[in-house]
Amino acid sequence: MTKQELIENIKRKKSFLCIGLDTDLKKIPEHLKREDDPVFAFNKAIIDATADYCIAYKPNIAFYEYNGLKGLTSLYKTVDYIKKNYPDQFIIADAKRGDIGNTSEMYANAFLKEMDVDAITVAPYMGEDSVTPFLKYDGKWVILLALTSNKGAQDFQFQEDENGEWLFEKVLKISQKWGTDENMMYVVGATQEKMFGYIRKIVPEHFLLVPGIGAQGGSLEEVCKYGLNDCCGLIINSSRAIIYADRSEQFAVRAAEEAALIRDEMKNYLSQKGII
Amino acid sequence: MTKQELIENIKRKKSFLCIGLDTDLKKIPEHLKREDDPVFAFNKAIIDATADYCIAYKPNIAFYEYNGLKGLTSLYKTVDYIKKNYPDQFIIADAKRGDIGNTSEMYANAFLKEMDVDAITVAPYMGEDSVTPFLKYDGKWVILLALTSNKGAQDFQFQEDENGEWLFEKVLKISQKWGTDENMMYVVGATQEKMFGYIRKIVPEHFLLVPGIGAQGGSLEEVCKYGLNDCCGLIINSSRAIIYADRSEQFAVRAAEEAALIRDEMKNYLSQKGII
Repeated sequence: MTKQELIENIKRKKSFLCIGLDTDLKKIPEHLKREDDPVFAFNKAIIDATADYCIAYKPNIAFYEYNGLKGLTSLYKTVDYIKKNYPDQFIIADAKRGDIGNTSEMYANAFLKEMDVDAITVAPYMGEDSVTPFLKYDGKWVILLALTSNKGAQDFQFQEDENGEWLFEKVLKISQKWGTDENMMYVVGATQEKMFGYIRKIVPEHFLLVPGIGAQGGSLEEVCKYGLNDCCGLIINSSRAIIYADRSEQFAVRAAEEAALIRDEMKNYLSQKGII
Repeated sequence: MTKQELIENIKRKKSFLCIGLDTDLKKIPEHLKREDDPVFAFNKAIIDATADYCIAYKPNIAFYEYNGLKGLTSLYKTVDYIKKNYPDQFIIADAKRGDIGNTSEMYANAFLKEMDVDAITVAPYMGEDSVTPFLKYDGKWVILLALTSNKGAQDFQFQEDENGEWLFEKVLKISQKWGTDENMMYVVGATQEKMFGYIRKIVPEHFLLVPGIGAQGGSLEEVCKYGLNDCCGLIINSSRAIIYADRSEQFAVRAAEEAALIRDEMKNYLSQKGII
């Protein structure tokens, strides 16, 4: 998907919500556990109920690897289902991969060609040749970790160099030589809300993928206040607060209600910003 | 596997060689491509031929993900085959995972419990809570990226802070609070041979997993000169130079010859150091 297509989807659907498919067998409603593939059944119901309110889905690969071969099958089926039925959805493999060049090439092929998702999250620690193999696929995106939403972000990402620059700043600056705002985005956690204004000065045009609202406690309002740019520039993820809003047979309806609430709030921010 | 068991295996086999199973369908001998599972057939032949000369195997997960469900099946079969037939081999899932706590827990379970390998490589960028979930399994190991073998290691790992400390140094120092030399090792690339003496001062007791000899150009002699400690403390990996030493029907015999040559060199260094 091109940047222009993504922006058009955001304007048309008045939403920049991404729903995280962190599907955990232990947390899905009891009645689904009788299905052949309970994870896929859950995902399908969530997707059908929420597709009007979001512009992206983000399966978290760990939750599928957890279930071994069966998990990988559920993942492929989920991606195929979205692609076939909701081709305007941007699909992000939240995999946080990254390795030496010949190995990153294998990961890139696995996710961006064979699984054929639109984007993959990548860890920056190993530098340029660990990231660029993911940038060789037309219409596909690298979403590079910059400033993450977890407590451990403090351990290394805020390390200052001799000029007072933080490590995550260096990641933002140096990686801009590797790709463009047409094929790279950055992960910036919603819990880092105070940093959005600062980050926007470094990457004014890039889309930011923002996890951490909902269960992790970040504020949508604050993130939008400092993070929105003239083309929106934000994809905001919520996982647990939507998909586990309810554990009864009404789970999908309740997930849709939660997603609609966030969409309504997003619609206001897009309107205030003059984007729609 | 405990640290003591690993050291005993090294002394008994007079080797600290790890063979990287970066098995690429495009590179395996033609006659194996007629097998039901050519990747497993290749791995099995390599393992049977080389097990006397090495103390560890390291499947590179990217090469299996590349082949989708079939690849994951080959991976499980390979791990099971090693565990059943060569229980003294230390098995490393080279996966370079790492994510927020609840997600790292899923990866940890997938690799250290379900797949039941001895160790997993983990990326440090997201800090403590992305690493500690992997430390909760008795007898299992985290192998944390410190200073990698690739060119991109220069991009961030050598960033200096206000005190002149490199990022990889901080990773070594800070992460020592998370685990011990009984459940953590570090990746240090053989191409960083000048740094081994320096790194040994920071982590005198920890095992280092050293990729980058062979195809990547690092020197075994230099690494051993500065990296060996009194308990060996090194696991040195070679992948392509061994497993693709030959592409004919003689591939396994030739792989064994290459592995034996490295073992012979290692035996000398262990002897010079008084370890055996």
